[in-house]
Amino acid sequence: MSSFGTLFKVTTYGESHCKSVGCIVDGVPPGLELTEADIQPQLTRRRPGQSKLSTPRNEKDRVFIQSGTEYGKTLGTSIGMLVANEDQRPHDYSETDLYPRPSHADFTYLSKYGIKASSGGGRSSARETIGRVAAGAIAEKFLQKANNVEIVAFVSQIGEVKMTRDVTDPKFVELLNTVTREQVDDAGPVRCPDPSVAQAMVEEIEKYRDAKDSIGGVVTCVIRNAPIGLGEPVFDKLEAQLAHAMLSLPATKGFEIGSGFEGVQIPGSKHNDPFYLEEETGRFRTKTNNSGGIQGGISNGENIYFSVAFKSAATISKEQPTATYEGKKGVLAARGRHDPSVTPRAIPIVEAMAALVLADSLLVQKSREYAHNIVKN
Amino acid sequence: MSSFGTLFKVTTYGESHCKSVGCIVDGVPPGLELTEADIQPQLTRRRPGQSKLSTPRNEKDRVFIQSGTEYGKTLGTSIGMLVANEDQRPHDYSETDLYPRPSHADFTYLSKYGIKASSGGGRSSARETIGRVAAGAIAEKFLQKANNVEIVAFVSQIGEVKMTRDVTDPKFVELLNTVTREQVDDAGPVRCPDPSVAQAMVEEIEKYRDAKDSIGGVVTCVIRNAPIGLGEPVFDKLEAQLAHAMLSLPATKGFEIGSGFEGVQIPGSKHNDPFYLEEETGRFRTKTNNSGGIQGGISNGENIYFSVAFKSAATISKEQPTATYEGKKGVLAARGRHDPSVTPRAIPIVEAMAALVLADSLLVQKSREYAHNIVKN
Amino acid sequence: MSSFGTLFKVTTYGESHCKSVGCIVDGVPPGLELTEADIQPQLTRRRPGQSKLSTPRNEKDRVFIQSGTEYGKTLGTSIGMLVANEDQRPHDYSETDLYPRPSHADFTYLSKYGIKASSGGGRSSARETIGRVAAGAIAEKFLQKANNVEIVAFVSQIGEVKMTRDVTDPKFVELLNTVTREQVDDAGPVRCPDPSVAQAMVEEIEKYRDAKDSIGGVVTCVIRNAPIGLGEPVFDKLEAQLAHAMLSLPATKGFEIGSGFEGVQIPGSKHNDPFYLEEETGRFRTKTNNSGGIQGGISNGENIYFSVAFKSAATISKEQPTATYEGKKGVLAARGRHDPSVTPRAIPIVEAMAALVLADSLLVQKSREYAHNIVKN
Amino acid sequence: MSSFGTLFKVTTYGESHCKSVGCIVDGVPPGLELTEADIQPQLTRRRPGQSKLSTPRNEKDRVFIQSGTEYGKTLGTSIGMLVANEDQRPHDYSETDLYPRPSHADFTYLSKYGIKASSGGGRSSARETIGRVAAGAIAEKFLQKANNVEIVAFVSQIGEVKMTRDVTDPKFVELLNTVTREQVDDAGPVRCPDPSVAQAMVEEIEKYRDAKDSIGGVVTCVIRNAPIGLGEPVFDKLEAQLAHAMLSLPATKGFEIGSGFEGVQIPGSKHNDPFYLEEETGRFRTKTNNSGGIQGGISNGENIYFSVAFKSAATISKEQPTATYEGKKGVLAARGRHDPSVTPRAIPIVEAMAALVLADSLLVQKSREYAHNIVKN
Repeated sequence: MSSFGTLFKVTTYGESHCKSVGCIVDGVPPGLELTEADIQPQLTRRRPGQSKLSTPRNEKDRVFIQSGTEYGKTLGTSIGMLVANEDQRPHDYSETDLYPRPSHADFTYLSKYGIKASSGGGRSSARETIGRVAAGAIAEKFLQKANNVEIVAFVSQIGEVKMTRDVTDPKFVELLNTVTREQVDDAGPVRCPDPSVAQAMVEEIEKYRDAKDSIGGVVTCVIRNAPIGLGEPVFDKLEAQLAHAMLSLPATKGFEIGSGFEGVQIPGSKHNDPFYLEEETGRFRTKTNNSGGIQGGISNGENIYFSVAFKSAATISKEQPTATYEGKKGVLAARGRHDPSVTPRAIPIVEAMAALVLADSLLVQKSREYAHNIVKN
Repeated sequence: MSSFGTLFKVTTYGESHCKSVGCIVDGVPPGLELTEADIQPQLTRRRPGQSKLSTPRNEKDRVFIQSGTEYGKTLGTSIGMLVANEDQRPHDYSETDLYPRPSHADFTYLSKYGIKASSGGGRSSARETIGRVAAGAIAEKFLQKANNVEIVAFVSQIGEVKMTRDVTDPKFVELLNTVTREQVDDAGPVRCPDPSVAQAMVEEIEKYRDAKDSIGGVVTCVIRNAPIGLGEPVFDKLEAQLAHAMLSLPATKGFEIGSGFEGVQIPGSKHNDPFYLEEETGRFRTKTNNSGGIQGGISNGENIYFSVAFKSAATISKEQPTATYEGKKGVLAARGRHDPSVTPRAIPIVEAMAALVLADSLLVQKSREYAHNIVKN
Repeated sequence: MSSFGTLFKVTTYGESHCKSVGCIVDGVPPGLELTEADIQPQLTRRRPGQSKLSTPRNEKDRVFIQSGTEYGKTLGTSIGMLVANEDQRPHDYSETDLYPRPSHADFTYLSKYGIKASSGGGRSSARETIGRVAAGAIAEKFLQKANNVEIVAFVSQIGEVKMTRDVTDPKFVELLNTVTREQVDDAGPVRCPDPSVAQAMVEEIEKYRDAKDSIGGVVTCVIRNAPIGLGEPVFDKLEAQLAHAMLSLPATKGFEIGSGFEGVQIPGSKHNDPFYLEEETGRFRTKTNNSGGIQGGISNGENIYFSVAFKSAATISKEQPTATYEGKKGVLAARGRHDPSVTPRAIPIVEAMAALVLADSLLVQKSREYAHNIVKN
Repeated sequence: MSSFGTLFKVTTYGESHCKSVGCIVDGVPPGLELTEADIQPQLTRRRPGQSKLSTPRNEKDRVFIQSGTEYGKTLGTSIGMLVANEDQRPHDYSETDLYPRPSHADFTYLSKYGIKASSGGGRSSARETIGRVAAGAIAEKFLQKANNVEIVAFVSQIGEVKMTRDVTDPKFVELLNTVTREQVDDAGPVRCPDPSVAQAMVEEIEKYRDAKDSIGGVVTCVIRNAPIGLGEPVFDKLEAQLAHAMLSLPATKGFEIGSGFEGVQIPGSKHNDPFYLEEETGRFRTKTNNSGGIQGGISNGENIYFSVAFKSAATISKEQPTATYEGKKGVLAARGRHDPSVTPRAIPIVEAMAALVLADSLLVQKSREYAHNIVKN
């Protein structure tokens, strides 16, 4: 439902046009320095209206911590956070409301709940992800402290324009090793750190924007410095938790870890990641990383990387032949301007969900390590 | 950990060489006719040694219900089930034990738990999936009763040999509408219902088998007649639960629903599934089904279909240069014969996990529908 | 942690002196008429400062719904609610802070979290219960709609002054059958509906108030019209859930259901509740109700009644010899005025927790009944 | 339902007359020495037929570990355990089956599930507790290793015969500090370590046994050496978890911690436990322990002690006027011999549930302590 996690747990609330959206984060380690300044940056990155490529609505999205901190430190108690909705106006009724938007959540929400928010996407709106991002920012700060964990997501594909995601390509491996959020943001509005394709991606989006259409994309994310041992076999393998987290995001259609779907073509003798001892660090490592940093559902200390497919946004201004709720044939064209590609904005959301999974897994594993050390003698 | 589900919940136990493997299924509806005969068929389908393509170990895998039924009917109480391990022999120590198998769970299990089963894959062994399949068979029987739900998985790719998964291809759509388990099993050992590629898949597997190597594949699964309204936004969207379930299976590297990764290239105007009223049935349907039967995280009554990527098996007889746990370089070649492709055997396991997700979602939704009917007036 | 429930689930946040306290309620049935007017009355009953018997701080405690409703109806999505803290002032440091208050949570919170809210009780403050009461009010409205469930709590003991709780006393049985909230509130500030002891209870409290001391009490609660079949054996028997709910309240030391601790002296032949068919209603009932409406962990349709022991409040103005955190002996007297008895204010809180348990149990059971009806044929 | 716990989690199965009863224990620390010899003693203590006071059925209750250990050490994976039911015979139909046993679970199980085990108590039978005791034995071994935790339960009341439970009585305080399981078992069949009342308790039970009747009792339990900081405010306070655990046991009607119901009469100035520094150990302690070792829902390092009320057993041989399921009046007398007091047998079950709560709480708290140490700097 609206909660995610076991020990580090977020619960969210909020629709697109209600009073506020927000979350409660439970299980945050006590004593962590935390103010709104730690949370706002990722919320600001998530915000639309930052470039001509995205929808120009100017949401300010300022977060307020309600509880769980004092004098800038966490108390270990649940942290309430909220962001006001600026657009709480009553809905302007219009003809388009007769039509459930194709591939949007209008029809299924109404079917499931027997009632539906009249304005915008309601709970299925992207505003719902604000609570996730706020919670993820806390998780991330903990992970940085705990193990200097770095999480960087970037756009690796827009429509037909794609950068390499081939893990046998040294250039891609190097990118995973080094890419930073600054590089991603500096690479332009599309947030693709590969300059050889970033401009083509922009043009791809502009093409669909001008056609009042939309286009999908792929976000790739790398997690560096994750401790060895995270993930709970058998049902809560680390990749299973990540897949759950990512497919819970609006508009996602796929998840792959490591070599992913392409990797099924690689025979075991080449796909297997041989072990070696890294002399300079003493770390037991793998030469290749087709596994994507997880083996047997457990992190092995290598980079964890995965990709998430985002479909083209459902709401478009272009006319679509469809039917009203009553089944009467007609044509729907969404009013106003709409985001031609949600993929670039998904970057901080993917990072947030990754951080939530990692923080929770780390807390669970650390209690095991404590217990193992106690009982093994 | 070892539990999955909220109201319909399975908990499993068992390693490859312990006394038995099994599960407890909680939340099974009372009054359901149920004997071992309902469960054994899928366990038998899961069993290795059924064709020359898979590993010849002859596990019998006979299931015994321990509790929760009387006179062939479920009592509504938790159902214990177990399958004895025939191979409980003490481990033959050998030189290969010095090496963590590349891309297997040896190293990560030892790192996570500080101890590891000496024989076979321990808890990471495919025998762990027996409990899932047994539980899934119960879920499936309930779903059949509840809504005549049909779940059919099949192999859609082995290595580089693939059948179409293009949802805009009428042949594929028709296959999703009609394919049966009988067709899948009758299509030969590789369980691909497309005769135009099934033989090539067999040859692909034989090629790697003869090379003492292994190869991956893709399993596609369709769920027909799922009720409208399943899935719990926001964190437990139906596709998120399915992704979690599938990525919790051994050797999986990816999950995609509906148009999946390919679909990101399709603009919204084509990707959106327009609505129409099906005159003969009165059902409100979509003309296309790029969504894969789920919109906004909620089933919409169309076929739910998804694909799961299985990597090539890690354990191969071919020599692999790698290192011992101590970091000493060496060459590992697994003793004995090993399955060159686990993908065909994964069919009933994928079906089982799909059934578990659906049964749980259905129970949760039905309580909401009850409550909505009460309060709406 | 800060969440309670399975399908009908509340998550709370907030300390005594942070910005606001509040909650998120997930799983609320869609289509329920709901505005702040449904929630405020129980919050107002919970509020201190309503009589000379309780602490005179005048908290206004006005609740604001943030999400999950539109045009006065629930959407089925999570409902955010908050109540501002009027007292958010920075803490006035004083000598008393050197001392952990005896039998308060100061020492254990600091030990557990390594950090502690400087002002008031932090998360252990009674203000934490605001979120519970707000959520409980929603649960209660659903239960009324669903089965005309009535939940009434009252004070049955203050210090040594007690009314009968003997279930073999016809007067007590009659009270359980008929007592209303109006009667409870009209009975005076102590909320004991038995006029023969209410005034003595007032005097008992005044005695301790004048001595700058505090005194405990017992709250008894009856749930009428609970459907048959609620409660989930084996670990989540209905009385186990109620006990969990009640012992999670601040200052509680005991819970008993039906005949309780006194009942252990009654032999089975007298304690057993014989069955009979109530002619006029056709209901299968029990002649006595020593069981307290629950048998085998499952409600049987009779009145569910239980009692909760509240200890005397820890914070008193009277001087107490104790020690500082460093172990230095000294004398602590809390500044300001303090509630001599929290028991009367606990009434709406006990009712709220009872409602949350019942609503959740009802949703779980209804999905089972649906499933049973499907599969039994 | 049939699972209990968050990180240290038990799931059970089994009715009175099915093939076996058992459990799966998840989250057991890896590397713990564990064989059946660690588990059998408490199962044997739980077994009926050990004295003339209890029912003479001779169940052998031998436990077999199925998984999760190798060479006598835990692997960190889930541990399956089972105990065969010796009595799996088909039910002898008789006239008594027409009657739901008063105050037994017959009627409520049938109402809830729409079906009921024909023989014995089904899932409501005391045999269900075998899985709890087996799991609790593992929890206890971990707790002993972790902190030398000692858990000792004993009978403090049978019918009207009671030993003191007054925590202001130095004799009782001393008993809580020192009582051992050996003393409890050596004190005779009734397991009351106070010799001044143990014989009277025996006579009390014999009186009811001879009258073909039954009688209730109270079990008191002390947990020594529990670490400071266990328990998760706000909803999972340690006493709330203990209350949940205890009220989930068959035949329980009440739970009290520390001063309990009697304590409500003690004013705050006397009830509060003053702090002091114990010179010889450097421990920060309380002079009295009315709190029962828990303050603010968190353990404070003092003895945790609580009492549980067990009602008289429902199944008696004495004739009871009641009604058939159809409402026809009649008289029921249970066939065979029945336990006149289940209280003495409940001792190891109470200890097991206490151990499960503590082990789970400890694992959760240890991950917090780890995280706090990381982030506080």
